[in-house]
Amino acid sequence: MILDSLMIEMLPKIEDTLKDMVYKKIPQQYTGIVEMMSYHMGWTNSIEKQKGKRIRPIILLLSTKICGGEWQKALPAAAAVELLHNFSLIHDDIEDQSEFRHGRNTVWKLWGLSQAINTGDAMFSLSQLGILDLGNLVNIEVAYESIKVFNLTCVSLTGGQYLDMTFENDKEISSDNYFQMVSGKTAALLAASTEIGAIVAQTTIANRKHLHTFGEALGLAFQAQDDYLGIWGEEPLTGKSRSSDLKSGKKTLPVVFAFEKMPELKEKFCKKPINDDEIDERAMILENLGAKKYTESVTKHYTNLAIQSLNAVEISDKKAYQALLELTNFLLTRNK
Amino acid sequence: MILDSLMIEMLPKIEDTLKDMVYKKIPQQYTGIVEMMSYHMGWTNSIEKQKGKRIRPIILLLSTKICGGEWQKALPAAAAVELLHNFSLIHDDIEDQSEFRHGRNTVWKLWGLSQAINTGDAMFSLSQLGILDLGNLVNIEVAYESIKVFNLTCVSLTGGQYLDMTFENDKEISSDNYFQMVSGKTAALLAASTEIGAIVAQTTIANRKHLHTFGEALGLAFQAQDDYLGIWGEEPLTGKSRSSDLKSGKKTLPVVFAFEKMPELKEKFCKKPINDDEIDERAMILENLGAKKYTESVTKHYTNLAIQSLNAVEISDKKAYQALLELTNFLLTRNK
Repeated sequence: MILDSLMIEMLPKIEDTLKDMVYKKIPQQYTGIVEMMSYHMGWTNSIEKQKGKRIRPIILLLSTKICGGEWQKALPAAAAVELLHNFSLIHDDIEDQSEFRHGRNTVWKLWGLSQAINTGDAMFSLSQLGILDLGNLVNIEVAYESIKVFNLTCVSLTGGQYLDMTFENDKEISSDNYFQMVSGKTAALLAASTEIGAIVAQTTIANRKHLHTFGEALGLAFQAQDDYLGIWGEEPLTGKSRSSDLKSGKKTLPVVFAFEKMPELKEKFCKKPINDDEIDERAMILENLGAKKYTESVTKHYTNLAIQSLNAVEISDKKAYQALLELTNFLLTRNK
Repeated sequence: MILDSLMIEMLPKIEDTLKDMVYKKIPQQYTGIVEMMSYHMGWTNSIEKQKGKRIRPIILLLSTKICGGEWQKALPAAAAVELLHNFSLIHDDIEDQSEFRHGRNTVWKLWGLSQAINTGDAMFSLSQLGILDLGNLVNIEVAYESIKVFNLTCVSLTGGQYLDMTFENDKEISSDNYFQMVSGKTAALLAASTEIGAIVAQTTIANRKHLHTFGEALGLAFQAQDDYLGIWGEEPLTGKSRSSDLKSGKKTLPVVFAFEKMPELKEKFCKKPINDDEIDERAMILENLGAKKYTESVTKHYTNLAIQSLNAVEISDKKAYQALLELTNFLLTRNK
């Protein structure tokens, strides 16, 4: 697989850049911040599989490469999107009261709320400094354009998170609301990764647009798939309880679809806590209403849109194209 | 007073720019975020005196003007430093568990922790977009240089906050530690305000340096003064309990000074909670050890440094110079 061989080349460079940023850009006197960051990034007290997959930086580097750019020059931007993603995880874990991530305690669980909020903020600033390094490695115009896309994305990320938290206690969520939320929470950062990759390559406006749409569609397909697996995935593979999405009353795509089909379900589905029998019953109701099929069709739709957009790119590097295609298939045919 | 007449001109423009940013750059579907932001900024459910004083944006605009720049062009940067300051307040209030600010409930108290953390994050992103507007109003180089200073400052801010929280439970804090903390928490953002003001004016490196030092020294003097008033200020004027700093066991400058003079005090001062008599006793111990005089001398030292740095600037606008001098005197002779 071409993806594998490129990842073997890229992943260590991404990790080096991330470490450089955390260890060199945070002044020494703030030792605790560095400690929390390196714990969260999986560099301390972790085993390999507990680290994040670094999907976003890989996609960014491949987007630079597909347009004929040098992916090495995009490394600080790749590290920046990963740091942005991880800053949002540190805060999300607090907001969702999640005590575990990748099988380890979350930062707030170990260091307390206050330090965790603040370390998230520090990581957010650090990610911005990463993007700004493009000013030295490429040029100031590229850095400026990239950091603009980056911060518009941050607004979308927080907007998506706001909607997610609001919808949790709101029975009246429509599928429009759902897609607004997912566009912010999941798709925006993937779209920013592909678009910034294109900006670093200094490619055409058309390529930048196609890559943006590719990233966005990939994100939407990925989220629909994730929602599907949260109800119908195989438990030992997903690592989280198959039913946790139904238990927590999360407004995932199948649920929102079912609410639109049968509004009287809302009352029933808002009842918490529920036992295992009720979870099975709810999953069955969703399936009978066509929510399983619908969710599969949404994944399919956005997967097709992603591939179509990728094919629209004027390709300067076939390996990168092949790798992005493989990555799309890998992400969207996973069963965990 | 020249300061007053300039403030009458500048303050409404600052407020308009802030409102433009919050109301126009946050997409409409995120209504709750806009609502929380405008509440926090004092635009809803507040009376005039409950709004922030907008000191930082004023200082930024005056720094542009003193170098002969057009302060109107610096408005988005001025709004950005105010938003950055306010984002940090939203998060600090959570971290310090403060339920009130300017006599009103804090954002987390009204909307809950999760929404408040997220709205702070959104305001942080918004502040970055403000700086980036300099790309249109001035040029890309100015925007790039400014956003670099801005994000290095954010790292310092979070670093200072980290030290502050760490020191709260640490008896071994030295005055070196104290100044590290205050440099990050208070002085860094004032130094960034004056420096970015200079950058927007596209002035000499020397002017930029002098204005940076002016802002930094002003911040250090201000904090020493604040620590003084927290113990020896007049209660009806400060609006907060005269003794709250001593009650909370905060490691302010007089306390840190006293700990260095008499290490055996540490045990005694760490005892919480304490009653009013004990507060008076502690204040007296500090005064007898010379902590009151020392704190006054630190304020004096940094005030002199600030004025000296301001005088070193090659002044293109005398009114702005006069206004900055008046502002320095106003901030550092206040008794509340």
